[in-house]
Amino acid sequence: MREVYHEQLDRVSDDLVEMTRLVASAMNRATQSLLDADLQLAESVIAGDDAIDAIASKVEADCFQVSARQQPVATDLRIVVAALRISASLERMGDLAAHIAKSARMRYPASAVPAQLRPTFQAMGAVAQNVVSKTGSVIATKDVSMAADVARMDEEMDRLHREMFQTVLSPTWEFGVESAVDVTLLSRFYERFADHAVTIAKRVVYVATGEPYATVDPEAMLDNL
Amino acid sequence: MREVYHEQLDRVSDDLVEMTRLVASAMNRATQSLLDADLQLAESVIAGDDAIDAIASKVEADCFQVSARQQPVATDLRIVVAALRISASLERMGDLAAHIAKSARMRYPASAVPAQLRPTFQAMGAVAQNVVSKTGSVIATKDVSMAADVARMDEEMDRLHREMFQTVLSPTWEFGVESAVDVTLLSRFYERFADHAVTIAKRVVYVATGEPYATVDPEAMLDNL
Repeated sequence: MREVYHEQLDRVSDDLVEMTRLVASAMNRATQSLLDADLQLAESVIAGDDAIDAIASKVEADCFQVSARQQPVATDLRIVVAALRISASLERMGDLAAHIAKSARMRYPASAVPAQLRPTFQAMGAVAQNVVSKTGSVIATKDVSMAADVARMDEEMDRLHREMFQTVLSPTWEFGVESAVDVTLLSRFYERFADHAVTIAKRVVYVATGEPYATVDPEAMLDNL
Repeated sequence: MREVYHEQLDRVSDDLVEMTRLVASAMNRATQSLLDADLQLAESVIAGDDAIDAIASKVEADCFQVSARQQPVATDLRIVVAALRISASLERMGDLAAHIAKSARMRYPASAVPAQLRPTFQAMGAVAQNVVSKTGSVIATKDVSMAADVARMDEEMDRLHREMFQTVLSPTWEFGVESAVDVTLLSRFYERFADHAVTIAKRVVYVATGEPYATVDPEAMLDNL
């Protein structure tokens, strides 16, 4: 009975890793659709969000079922609670990718990102891809040392976020208020995306080490503005 | 034994209601500090966020403990899972109030909200107060009919969010790019605040009715821009 139980927990972990793959793919396509003003690609991200939400619902149902069927011991319970939180974060990361795709769709056939900010958003897209792929490895391997990599990538994202503000607020900005509003929200979506990756990595560390999960607010964004 | 268990679940519910009170107070003070450029009030919100996070940690620990001590039946398990999610949302709402206070602090002694947008942000503050207080009532009473009120308030918040965009993007906007960036992020914080209230209300409905929780994305913000 306990073995069946642990097989079920392994399946939940596999589903979470699969979610990171889908989220990584969604985020890559969202960034590409944004930079290339590719409407079809944007639509594929928006339509694909349901598949991510569906796995999140499945994870929740599975966690619910394994807890109801068998009295979980403390460690298993910590895994179940962590899985619920991680799945909620991944679902939200999928939403953020869809938001970026919606912004691309809204400005089509123009690009929502003016030429001056293309390198910044290209870099944000690359960091987003790396951070969610690293998060998948953290979930799959429970390798606590990799959580530090996730934190470093988040710092790089924060730096890019500040770079975006500097560009928009500099006297050379010539794309007006509407474009400033667009890129402010877009940059915020990338920044929140990386924050969620950090939250997930911290959860995995908590499960692996038993150290109490420190409640942190990774968004020092406004302080750094 | 089961009675002790249910007493513990009641205590969790009381803690969640207490969180809504603290979040409501934080959000009121944050709005006031923003509109009045009141540094002391802003600092009180930022410092007070720890108290909200502390209850969230307590709720998580209590949920963990009651599940470990006693095999929960399906309904109780649903309550535990919902409590974890609700507490995460309330913690995030506290963060958003702190973000608003940080924005007020950053622009002090000026106000981050230009005169033209004061009525919009005043209305957002009022809706935020109403929506979290109504959410507290939903948690306390499990009255499913009140969840519809929360959804209506969220729609009103979305309308104010669109109103902010219209003001910023109109030809009469004379406060420049920096102010546009400020109010875009601020308005986004209020809008997300109301989204979380809707998520909480839906969770309570799910527990009360057993109807599967529909995964929704209440942020049609970019579509409505």
